[in-house]
Amino acid sequence: MKLPMKLYFSPLACSLASRITFYEAGADIEYLYADTKTKRLEDGSDFLAINPMGQVPTLEVDDGTLLTENSAILQYVAECLPAAQLAPASGMARAQLQKWLGFIGTELHKAVYMPLLDPKAPEAVKAYARDKIPLRMDCLQKHLAGREFVLDRFSIADAYLTTILNWSAAVGLKLTPWPAVAAYYQRMLQRPAVGRAVSEEFALYQKEQAHQSAVRQ
Amino acid sequence: MKLPMKLYFSPLACSLASRITFYEAGADIEYLYADTKTKRLEDGSDFLAINPMGQVPTLEVDDGTLLTENSAILQYVAECLPAAQLAPASGMARAQLQKWLGFIGTELHKAVYMPLLDPKAPEAVKAYARDKIPLRMDCLQKHLAGREFVLDRFSIADAYLTTILNWSAAVGLKLTPWPAVAAYYQRMLQRPAVGRAVSEEFALYQKEQAHQSAVRQ
Repeated sequence: MKLPMKLYFSPLACSLASRITFYEAGADIEYLYADTKTKRLEDGSDFLAINPMGQVPTLEVDDGTLLTENSAILQYVAECLPAAQLAPASGMARAQLQKWLGFIGTELHKAVYMPLLDPKAPEAVKAYARDKIPLRMDCLQKHLAGREFVLDRFSIADAYLTTILNWSAAVGLKLTPWPAVAAYYQRMLQRPAVGRAVSEEFALYQKEQAHQSAVRQ
Repeated sequence: MKLPMKLYFSPLACSLASRITFYEAGADIEYLYADTKTKRLEDGSDFLAINPMGQVPTLEVDDGTLLTENSAILQYVAECLPAAQLAPASGMARAQLQKWLGFIGTELHKAVYMPLLDPKAPEAVKAYARDKIPLRMDCLQKHLAGREFVLDRFSIADAYLTTILNWSAAVGLKLTPWPAVAAYYQRMLQRPAVGRAVSEEFALYQKEQAHQSAVRQ
């Protein structure tokens, strides 16, 4: 199914969660590469004119309306693709989804992984972020023990969490002390839609790294 | 209107956004003080047994179900109180609400204010957070210029944003370079429900500070 939407993405950035969501729903959209370092699109135009924060994901819908912020985009996409059942619609079930989107977004993405991924962050900032790992991973371990998914079935929370956990090797965070988290991550990668999204973006990431390396020389 | 809910809060913490939301809707609930430093409730019981992250707000509904994460609680409360119209129900209007909840939660609360409020954060961490202020406040200034609210009418995004901006003086962040943000904050404080919630929690905060000071001596 073709949807009239464009996703501005950067390989393996948190926009990967949106790609996973579209693939899980069998939906086809347009993907536009945004270089989050130079803030340029592939045609050389200014990404900051589209999103002043210069962040991916940014979603553009058919009337030109732009939507930013991962949790907002994931919930909007799930609402546009109801047959895929990627988000409970209302009530406490919806609230628990939003609780996990909030936890993943604020406690894992922003408080832990973001400073660890930032090459410009000083060591004190990285140490401050690392100190936050045990409590947060313990919470996640406790929740995921004996569960297949974050909720009762695959949801956008799994798309987001898998995307974040996928950065663990890059930031030197070994998941082995949290076996349910490590097993969950591996299990998610085995899903065809997740595996396809991750491997496609990994190939694009390698291409991007090779290009940036060539530019620097 | 009495609602069968309990809100675990700490004075002037981000749980204030939930109190503002209940007051705006004219809803009465039970408020339970949680000391986020000692992780104890007023009766001496362990708050970590209720929320392992030790964070407020934590909402308990009548069947005992617990809900955490500010954006999830605010959206759940708005859904329980539809007559107050504190959140658009669906579609792109809902998505834009979630975009602002995401921006306030991740870019302002977690990336800027949280490290600045943390007495244990080293100076390098505070400097890293301060560097993030201009871009984020510029985005907010641009959005709020010529607008009364974050969306077209008062919503839970205003309850959250007012709560965050209310920390500015405490962290030495002067809002004067962003006049639309400064005027917005003052305008929100003039709302009866917001003013009541802030002044009540300010009194509780002063009482808490006096108590902690007495315990230290």
